[in-house]
Amino acid sequence: SGLVHIKNPYLDSMEEDVLYHLDLGTKTHNLPAMFGDIKFVCVGGSPNRMRAFAHFMHKELGLMGDGEDLADICAGTDRYAMYRAGPVLSISHGMGIPSISIMLHELIKLLHHAKCRDVTIIRIGTSGGLGIEAGSVVITDMAVDSSFKPRFEQVVLDDVVVRSTELDKDLAEELLACSKEIPDFRTLIGHTMCTYDFYEGQGRLDGALCSFSSEKKLEYLKRAYDAGVRNIEMESTAFAALCGLCGLKGESSCSRLR
Amino acid sequence: SGLVHIKNPYLDSMEEDVLYHLDLGTKTHNLPAMFGDIKFVCVGGSPNRMRAFAHFMHKELGLMGDGEDLADICAGTDRYAMYRAGPVLSISHGMGIPSISIMLHELIKLLHHAKCRDVTIIRIGTSGGLGIEAGSVVITDMAVDSSFKPRFEQVVLDDVVVRSTELDKDLAEELLACSKEIPDFRTLIGHTMCTYDFYEGQGRLDGALCSFSSEKKLEYLKRAYDAGVRNIEMESTAFAALCGLCGLKGESSCSRLR
Repeated sequence: SGLVHIKNPYLDSMEEDVLYHLDLGTKTHNLPAMFGDIKFVCVGGSPNRMRAFAHFMHKELGLMGDGEDLADICAGTDRYAMYRAGPVLSISHGMGIPSISIMLHELIKLLHHAKCRDVTIIRIGTSGGLGIEAGSVVITDMAVDSSFKPRFEQVVLDDVVVRSTELDKDLAEELLACSKEIPDFRTLIGHTMCTYDFYEGQGRLDGALCSFSSEKKLEYLKRAYDAGVRNIEMESTAFAALCGLCGLKGESSCSRLR
Repeated sequence: SGLVHIKNPYLDSMEEDVLYHLDLGTKTHNLPAMFGDIKFVCVGGSPNRMRAFAHFMHKELGLMGDGEDLADICAGTDRYAMYRAGPVLSISHGMGIPSISIMLHELIKLLHHAKCRDVTIIRIGTSGGLGIEAGSVVITDMAVDSSFKPRFEQVVLDDVVVRSTELDKDLAEELLACSKEIPDFRTLIGHTMCTYDFYEGQGRLDGALCSFSSEKKLEYLKRAYDAGVRNIEMESTAFAALCGLCGLKGESSCSRLR
């Protein structure tokens, strides 16, 4: 049917669903009227960047007006920022798995309440590259954890549930084909490693704590490269697991910053 | 000496230390002049709330001006917001362990470069309460994980390191004594549980996914209560571990929202 799958037996019997961190709700907002025609959702860490992306999409799609006055749909909260340009929704998710997870739970419920169909979701964040040129864009075929395994360990109450982190392979190929039409746009398909920590988790030598040697760091990053990892960020495994479970066609493509 | 401990042998030999996510650096900013006299750091999730707190402190401390024009010291980035009112620094950290960890690594380095002494750091975020009245403030004596254990598992490269999450007991007692001076201000000392997830991790029945029954949720929360947990949030174990390792006198006190 192309609809989003909600896997929560309690949800449809609730009188009201408040999407706390988006400052939206089923009683306070007409979600089908506001979002029913959304076909693409693009997500990234920084609110300013997601506003700039919505402006860019507004222009690219040739929509009316200059797009400079796009309003933040979540203006009532400073947890996340959300903008729309035609059928494209642009939302910030902050940094790290817990932050993107809260946003995705509420976004997926929003798409469900709005009865959206055939939605494609793409994470367009930044990342650290591994053995690739600066400015390259990595299109993720598989999100892996810090042991290079394609899995996401979700704690449910006090149990650990392991979830798959495969992304939509056709969508990855489609994005790669699109990128080839643009001259001098370096893109590649590879695995993306997702960590819980920016400094100690990603082998940085410039955090407040650093207990490993430069050699140990390089040995770890080489093992990651040999396992197919081409970039490192902090959200992709949770993104892939949640989108996969809820039937959203998802992709993650990040540009290399370091 | 009261100085902050940096446990990174590489740091002092670096020519420049860029605090990327704070948009500050040792070459671009005179950190001792800007921050050398800081004695208290208060951190919380929301940037707007931390600005409001800085205004409040400005007024409470009787500083000059109305404090309405306090500038965001991290205005060049939208990752975090930072304000100061006299010797008090007020900083946002976003939601979840990865987000607060990035901020704390860079804050701790900032305090080190600025040669600050005897700094007290307090997290003043929101939380969900457990068997306590709405509006109560829980002063954390110990941050525990989802198994109610006082530990934080930090992934360093691909190793897991277990760290202690004890907070400063004298500071907790001091804060409790202060709160008693204010009429009708409900405070208590208790354990704070820190989770990686807001919906499935905290037993919520209104996420996009929910695989447990209402009974199982209640049974889990009862076990948490019996183990001494009085509130649940998403940052305290990482906060306690990092502050403890770096010699910062740290406390977490959160008000109950649910």
